[in-house]
Amino acid sequence: MIQYIKNGSVTTVKGFKAAGIHCGIKRKKKDLALLYCDDACTAAAAFTTNKVKAAPVVLSQSIIDKSGKAKAILINSGNANACTGQAGFIDAEKIQSYCAEKLGVSKDEVLISSTGVIGQRLPVDTILKGIDTISAELTEDGGLDCAHAIMTTDTKVKTYAVSVKLSSGEVTIGGMCKGSGMIMPNMATMLGFITTDAELDSATLKYHLLQSVNVTFNKISVDGETSTNDMVIALANGKSGIQVAETGEDAELFQSALLSLCKKMARAIVKDGEGATKLVTINISGAASQQDADLAGKTLANSPLVKTAIYGRDANWGRIMSSVGMSGADVCPEKVSICFDELPILLPGFNIVLNEEKALEVLSQKEIQLNVNLNNGDYSSTWWTCDFTENYVKINADYRT
Amino acid sequence: MIQYIKNGSVTTVKGFKAAGIHCGIKRKKKDLALLYCDDACTAAAAFTTNKVKAAPVVLSQSIIDKSGKAKAILINSGNANACTGQAGFIDAEKIQSYCAEKLGVSKDEVLISSTGVIGQRLPVDTILKGIDTISAELTEDGGLDCAHAIMTTDTKVKTYAVSVKLSSGEVTIGGMCKGSGMIMPNMATMLGFITTDAELDSATLKYHLLQSVNVTFNKISVDGETSTNDMVIALANGKSGIQVAETGEDAELFQSALLSLCKKMARAIVKDGEGATKLVTINISGAASQQDADLAGKTLANSPLVKTAIYGRDANWGRIMSSVGMSGADVCPEKVSICFDELPILLPGFNIVLNEEKALEVLSQKEIQLNVNLNNGDYSSTWWTCDFTENYVKINADYRT
Repeated sequence: MIQYIKNGSVTTVKGFKAAGIHCGIKRKKKDLALLYCDDACTAAAAFTTNKVKAAPVVLSQSIIDKSGKAKAILINSGNANACTGQAGFIDAEKIQSYCAEKLGVSKDEVLISSTGVIGQRLPVDTILKGIDTISAELTEDGGLDCAHAIMTTDTKVKTYAVSVKLSSGEVTIGGMCKGSGMIMPNMATMLGFITTDAELDSATLKYHLLQSVNVTFNKISVDGETSTNDMVIALANGKSGIQVAETGEDAELFQSALLSLCKKMARAIVKDGEGATKLVTINISGAASQQDADLAGKTLANSPLVKTAIYGRDANWGRIMSSVGMSGADVCPEKVSICFDELPILLPGFNIVLNEEKALEVLSQKEIQLNVNLNNGDYSSTWWTCDFTENYVKINADYRT
Repeated sequence: MIQYIKNGSVTTVKGFKAAGIHCGIKRKKKDLALLYCDDACTAAAAFTTNKVKAAPVVLSQSIIDKSGKAKAILINSGNANACTGQAGFIDAEKIQSYCAEKLGVSKDEVLISSTGVIGQRLPVDTILKGIDTISAELTEDGGLDCAHAIMTTDTKVKTYAVSVKLSSGEVTIGGMCKGSGMIMPNMATMLGFITTDAELDSATLKYHLLQSVNVTFNKISVDGETSTNDMVIALANGKSGIQVAETGEDAELFQSALLSLCKKMARAIVKDGEGATKLVTINISGAASQQDADLAGKTLANSPLVKTAIYGRDANWGRIMSSVGMSGADVCPEKVSICFDELPILLPGFNIVLNEEKALEVLSQKEIQLNVNLNNGDYSSTWWTCDFTENYVKINADYRT
């Protein structure tokens, strides 16, 4: 039984403290976040695949690869510390060391994350002063402030917690993320942070995290861009005393709770996508292989023609067919069927059953399912995307002019 | 010496006749085009790689694969005859046979091409009547009418001819194309037709055509979509009596003329791209392999963030770096340099030399070069794209609402 907790956050989980403050990287809004646990946590993460990796990505990745342990994550918004060369690494290490000192922990127990403008040096002194303040403000109900401080131009704060009863008791998983709402010029995009009081070793936590990330955060698209700073980090402090392994009934329950939380966060990012008015769930079924299902889903999720059509409430199955056809997936066009929600648009054999009036009704909703059955095998894949509006262009073109 | 011919078209080439008429597929505009030569021509072509191929693509491809010969190309706009199943093939064969009969040639000498709405049956009777008319209107100066009749929502007619002096005399190459100007809902996009009086066997013509197509039509992007109907066909009638082989000095001259013509057509398509206000030439240099150069160029040409930044006249090198980083190319971020035209923005070592005022001046032009040197090898690649504007979204979202 998975139970969402009202006003849940990363500090809903026992043993975690957090804070979020304005230190002066941004003009007014909160821009420094700290998540902390007295006990060393097991840490696992997924990082951007972009070859241009920001300094904090490289730094945090090396810690997680080496020890798989951490006690704190320091996150700043407003500056990505990306494309800043050797100087950027030195800056990142400086704030990392200072934060460790203030918290009385080892340097290698502090993970660093940054999001914001690319190519500008971090205002290190400003951040060091911020660390003085924030390290004294950590509280057990600081999760919401913390979630606010990682936002860039997100229009909504994204923070959740879920509990799940395992055979030997209940564990809690908290999460916060930011992303994709109005990526400003040079903004880096998606960050996610997850806490749990379950007890897992590093490899097991990584296993569960990647399982969930692969079908949630890795299946969303606003504009097909991969940022230099993307990361999802999970910390497990074991405070519940309840162990979770890779397999078994408890592992499955834990995985389903983590998956549910990650899905909630991933959908929240797309819903808050740049200029978006609609959340679109793309369900590909009947694919000949998992790769085919993913290729078709990804190509649809990234297609400007499909996304503008949905914005225009146009059940434009021709664009959908064309997109699936160019995806590289093994497709027999005459086998494909297409539905919006439960409403069939195209049946196999190019049998067009589109009822324009009913389609307009379905496509006028804020949340829409696009169901494409390739009728070519047993594999399926689910993706989330948003519609594509003039506001996306405005947001991304007008900012610096 | 390559010489462009004023008001040049496919009928500037000796021996070709053409016509373009309104037959009734569209409401008012010309919608049926015919290109014809009394003598059997050598034919070569490049077709869409989309797995959803329209009936005319499959039909024309089979003729060219089988005989490599043709006397006529019949092209209709306003209806793509794509996703129409078996019925669509029967329709295509019907108009092909009727056209052959009217012209007094064999069915297998008539190539068919269609562009327009996907998923609707061709109005066959309307087209048959149109064939009655158009087959009687073929003239040696019908190239311009013909080029008008293949347009869908292109805002400009795209027709050219070029002559080149080879060792034994002069040959002429004519060309027309349509595409990418306002792809309407379900519209199929790019078509190109080339004529020449040079004498080439089918394999040699194909060799030269693919050489040119690969670095021109295959290097343009408006929105990264590949249509179900794309094709480029070349016909060579040998009327000049001048032979062109695959290699040698004459072959190189012929290739350079054909390449120049294809480049002119490809650029014209991007310039007339949906909602576009700027033509952007992307030059990637210093790549470790040809594939790397192409990956970086293609990813930049398709990047909504880069294209909206250029629309906003924003020298946003962070987005360019991020895009190159996610392209899959082998990139050392600290080696990369970025210029707009001759103006350096970023030098190796993340050395930012951006002068905002000068950059705004360069980015205010209608045609811009984006030069990215990976400083990582000797390979290069040139791509063409346009900026990404609110009008792209309007055009593609509003049409059916």
